[in-house]
Amino acid sequence: MDERRRRPAKAAETALPADPEGRVRAVVEGVTPIVDGGRFAIKRVTGEPVKVEADCFADGHDVVVALLLWRRDGEKAWRSAPMEALGNDRWRAAFAADAMGRWWYTVTAWVDPFRTWRHDLARRVDAEDIMVAAEIGARLLEETASRAKGADRKALAAWAARLRAERDPDAVKSMGHDEALDELAMRYPDQRFATTHAPLPLRVDRERAGFSTWYELFPRSTAPEPGNHGTLRDCIGQLRRIAQMGFDVLYLPPIHPIGRERRKGPNNTLTPQPGDPGSPWAIGAAEGGHLAIHPELGTMEDFRALVAAAQEHGLELALDIAFQCAPDHPWVKEHPEWFRHRPDGSVQYAENPPKKYQDIYPFDFESEDWQNLWLALAGVFEFWIGEGVKIFRVDNPHTKAFAFWEWAIARIHRSHPEVIFLSEAFTRPRVMHRLAKLGFTQSYTYFTWRNTRHELVEYFNELAHGPGREYFRPNAWPNTPDILPEYLQVGGRPAFIARLVLAAMLAPNYGMYGPAFELMEHEPREPGSEEYLNSEKYQMRRWDLDRADSLAPLIARVNRIRHDNPALQSNHSLRFLPVDNDNLIAWSKHTDDLSSIVVTVVNLDPWHAHSGWIDLDLGAFGIEPGHPFQMHDLLSGARYLWSESRNYVHLDPQRMPAHVFRVRRRTRTEQDFDYFL
Amino acid sequence: MDERRRRPAKAAETALPADPEGRVRAVVEGVTPIVDGGRFAIKRVTGEPVKVEADCFADGHDVVVALLLWRRDGEKAWRSAPMEALGNDRWRAAFAADAMGRWWYTVTAWVDPFRTWRHDLARRVDAEDIMVAAEIGARLLEETASRAKGADRKALAAWAARLRAERDPDAVKSMGHDEALDELAMRYPDQRFATTHAPLPLRVDRERAGFSTWYELFPRSTAPEPGNHGTLRDCIGQLRRIAQMGFDVLYLPPIHPIGRERRKGPNNTLTPQPGDPGSPWAIGAAEGGHLAIHPELGTMEDFRALVAAAQEHGLELALDIAFQCAPDHPWVKEHPEWFRHRPDGSVQYAENPPKKYQDIYPFDFESEDWQNLWLALAGVFEFWIGEGVKIFRVDNPHTKAFAFWEWAIARIHRSHPEVIFLSEAFTRPRVMHRLAKLGFTQSYTYFTWRNTRHELVEYFNELAHGPGREYFRPNAWPNTPDILPEYLQVGGRPAFIARLVLAAMLAPNYGMYGPAFELMEHEPREPGSEEYLNSEKYQMRRWDLDRADSLAPLIARVNRIRHDNPALQSNHSLRFLPVDNDNLIAWSKHTDDLSSIVVTVVNLDPWHAHSGWIDLDLGAFGIEPGHPFQMHDLLSGARYLWSESRNYVHLDPQRMPAHVFRVRRRTRTEQDFDYFL
Repeated sequence: MDERRRRPAKAAETALPADPEGRVRAVVEGVTPIVDGGRFAIKRVTGEPVKVEADCFADGHDVVVALLLWRRDGEKAWRSAPMEALGNDRWRAAFAADAMGRWWYTVTAWVDPFRTWRHDLARRVDAEDIMVAAEIGARLLEETASRAKGADRKALAAWAARLRAERDPDAVKSMGHDEALDELAMRYPDQRFATTHAPLPLRVDRERAGFSTWYELFPRSTAPEPGNHGTLRDCIGQLRRIAQMGFDVLYLPPIHPIGRERRKGPNNTLTPQPGDPGSPWAIGAAEGGHLAIHPELGTMEDFRALVAAAQEHGLELALDIAFQCAPDHPWVKEHPEWFRHRPDGSVQYAENPPKKYQDIYPFDFESEDWQNLWLALAGVFEFWIGEGVKIFRVDNPHTKAFAFWEWAIARIHRSHPEVIFLSEAFTRPRVMHRLAKLGFTQSYTYFTWRNTRHELVEYFNELAHGPGREYFRPNAWPNTPDILPEYLQVGGRPAFIARLVLAAMLAPNYGMYGPAFELMEHEPREPGSEEYLNSEKYQMRRWDLDRADSLAPLIARVNRIRHDNPALQSNHSLRFLPVDNDNLIAWSKHTDDLSSIVVTVVNLDPWHAHSGWIDLDLGAFGIEPGHPFQMHDLLSGARYLWSESRNYVHLDPQRMPAHVFRVRRRTRTEQDFDYFL
Repeated sequence: MDERRRRPAKAAETALPADPEGRVRAVVEGVTPIVDGGRFAIKRVTGEPVKVEADCFADGHDVVVALLLWRRDGEKAWRSAPMEALGNDRWRAAFAADAMGRWWYTVTAWVDPFRTWRHDLARRVDAEDIMVAAEIGARLLEETASRAKGADRKALAAWAARLRAERDPDAVKSMGHDEALDELAMRYPDQRFATTHAPLPLRVDRERAGFSTWYELFPRSTAPEPGNHGTLRDCIGQLRRIAQMGFDVLYLPPIHPIGRERRKGPNNTLTPQPGDPGSPWAIGAAEGGHLAIHPELGTMEDFRALVAAAQEHGLELALDIAFQCAPDHPWVKEHPEWFRHRPDGSVQYAENPPKKYQDIYPFDFESEDWQNLWLALAGVFEFWIGEGVKIFRVDNPHTKAFAFWEWAIARIHRSHPEVIFLSEAFTRPRVMHRLAKLGFTQSYTYFTWRNTRHELVEYFNELAHGPGREYFRPNAWPNTPDILPEYLQVGGRPAFIARLVLAAMLAPNYGMYGPAFELMEHEPREPGSEEYLNSEKYQMRRWDLDRADSLAPLIARVNRIRHDNPALQSNHSLRFLPVDNDNLIAWSKHTDDLSSIVVTVVNLDPWHAHSGWIDLDLGAFGIEPGHPFQMHDLLSGARYLWSESRNYVHLDPQRMPAHVFRVRRRTRTEQDFDYFL
């Protein structure tokens, strides 16, 4: 890691370079996308295009040819596509990786003698010059033929002979223009002096990495009988309603045995009563640690049954991996070297002076035995992968060594490229970004605390269009068991709906902690706190899921809209729209082919109705101003006929604080306009 | 050069990293300044500060320490300075290199146990915790002592003993706050797990690289007798007037023997008459090539005399190096393999179809014998360096291989770090920037064609503040022997003055082609052409240097202003000022210490008087609005008393199209305000 003595690979030296390096005339630089000069991978899902650009040029006036190259890790041969010159020495091409895993891409360029000959010949006017060029071309094509085989070789030799034999300058010029000859010759270019950029890494995930809908549930609160401890079997009974709400990931807080030493009581008190269940994040007890299941939740058999039942409902189970130990975790005795110790020999608990967390022992990543620690921690993932889990929500990854994450995620992805890691790091921006670069598939965000239009526009523009867009996949949560934001505490039902629509329509990946969310749980532990009163973190709760005011039907509709409208499943087209009222926020998203266009408008004020004028960018939608188009509100079912870019909206939060418009435009076949009024 | 098979140095692998790499917790990234990830050097002059920033952070909450490191190439030990935390994980420190040549800088950071202990201790309130911390601190200081020597070792051991013996928690806390202990302990930090960024290159030039004033002169036009061919000895007679105009670089077009084959006549005609001198850029004849002097200019003795005389006048001689050959250059016969050949065996002349340049043979940088070609070309520089030349203006470097320039400039700088290379590449932006990255000290610019306020503001903001500012040193020329811009053709004396003031005040490095400039030569060869009529490129000229309307006195004043006002000698503080009339352009520059502040205003319309209101940023000048300050126009001598940011200016181009104000503010001692009205 100490790079102090290294020099940049190509620092200028006075020794002459080796042959043919000194004869390489083309340059490839400014390749995009790129993360930290290629140190980290960009991320895509299978089939998602990678649009690569580069500056390719050479000295002088000769013609440069540039190719985009890409290959799957382990493959020897590069696939390639010619790049298009955009002007000003910038080139572009695109590819899509068709399988999960690690890929590489790069750009190669060279000064091409044949293309230069062709370019110059087209500009020659002097007959004598043209006949000299014919002979030069014939020689070039003979060289090209020597690199070809079979029929192509014969065809190139025949072209060479024709050029040499031709006596009519105009006929020579025609041959120079011949597209078939160009196509044939460019199959065998002279790449002796090509320059190729250092390959850049690409991580390809499955589609759920880019589009997912999470529901977090405490199994202990799922018992049908009041007062009972819910079990994994009880969770099976919840799957239908969760699937009906349109979620595809069911995420469970840690399911491991909960420590008894220094167990916390309800509302995080230090005086638990017998029978208090403790925090699931205080992992490990006599029954086992990170590879065991809390006995009150059930057995490994029960777990497997839950995994299978979830799958039948189209749900994937996500586990919470929290690398920390309760004082009675078996590892504390078995591997004392994995922890720091205090002068008296006791294990050092977590602390952030003056705060002490005596129920939690953090691992010491500077341990002499760090290699075995790493293997054991990676082994936790590997164990649960063996039990069918392919999604992990990682608790506080920013308090574990970065190097560990890079190694562990790469190791797991090597054999299980389908695994998704969600980073639960609510910390400083550079730390969150580092974790995403190191390999985390998705990342929690600051969305939870972004409430005003200005905050939301700035933050989601950064997420969608800033440099992090290549590696940081946001997962937006309006609430978590740790965070009941003030806006939800005070804003009532309109606030919950607004935050739901914001998360669901702004972020292709979003999640909620339920049933607290759909039942609009909003009491804080104390004023000024973001902790839930009677938090499930420390006790069981009973939820009245059949309450008439439950948001479940609305959540189902919102998730159905996400599912049906591909525009909502990525963020590259996100564009915020001007509105002349700061309480309203509006944005559009669309697919590249414009088959799906969605405009969302949200009233951020949960107390008052607001109206305003929004400006659509009709050009981006392929709509000519003055031509009517339908705005179909997928939340209310209402349809409006608009025809100009500037339009009036009015949102009363007591009725519905948001519009989610599908934009239906008249297409050539008008098939897309079947609901035209 | 083919990097296709390389992988990024630290691509994640599944093997466990070696010890202690896995225990390294700190990250250093986002280091600035940096050019292409460290592939190329940033540039500074001796003594100029290098302000380095980096993102330094670690997992968790422990305290990180970051150092800036730098060393001269070849030195083993790094010099270092602690970096200051700016917040949000950004750190900064600065250094200045005190010698010319190649340097390296980098950033190292680590999680510091002592600083973490100190930070936590300051926040502890529980007496028992404090006493535990005392013991932990004592152990840490014992470890620190083991890395120290002599008195420091003893002092650290004494501190450890005091901490351990102390029974009063408040006294322990005081020791934690002790600055002397901190200073002592941080001399011997625990850097076992430090991470260090790959070193980044820095090129340090002499001061003239950053501030220079060039005058280009054709020696052949310097003969005192009409009709005679001017000589190098005649040039000596010009030195006094050139020095009096305030120039410090005298640049001569190529002084080598001029080819006779296919020699060009006046105005670039193909039908020269006997006695026509030809173009100095058609290099090489029977008398020799790039290492010889044109016999009509004189001998090597004459050249040495000119170098010495120039030096006496405070002028440095700059030679033009044009790597191309006339058909009768000796190398054409001696090294036919350095050139391309046509099918009939003749040497391929330069062409850009349909244009042909049959008097010029370019070198073939794809030659099989490229290594000897490189050595010969580098030898040209080395030969003239041996004759006392330390500045080279390189003709069309963009038509020679990039790899050659990087190697040649590094080779020459290794033994002659004082050499300055000016790149004469008027070509596409990325090519010009590449040449600057490869090592050229200064670069010609598009200034010559930037006339409107919008064009000038956009371009000079890019030069001063864009990414190129780290390596691209602009050298602005209002004219060259190749370029008589339309603005000078039509705008008369006001246009010449405006372009002079723009170049001189906007660009720390600027130059002019004289006497054509000071005598306001403005006739093009034909309408629509940028070529001079009767260009000195193809014939001798006689100049009436004593003409009453010569701009020489004004040029002398302008260059004196540049010399006397350090604000004008760099561009980092350049700020364009709002003006409510598009014909007026205004900008300010100042030194960091505000001892030199200059505001320039130019009327870009050479025909009409214009007035307008300009807005100064008084805060940047350290002036409080309402407090009077003096605007001393260094061109006219007039002094104005202003006191607000918004002020009226009026410029009549027939009188003087520019103000160059020195801003004199009332300082604490008022010494700077000696001219107060």
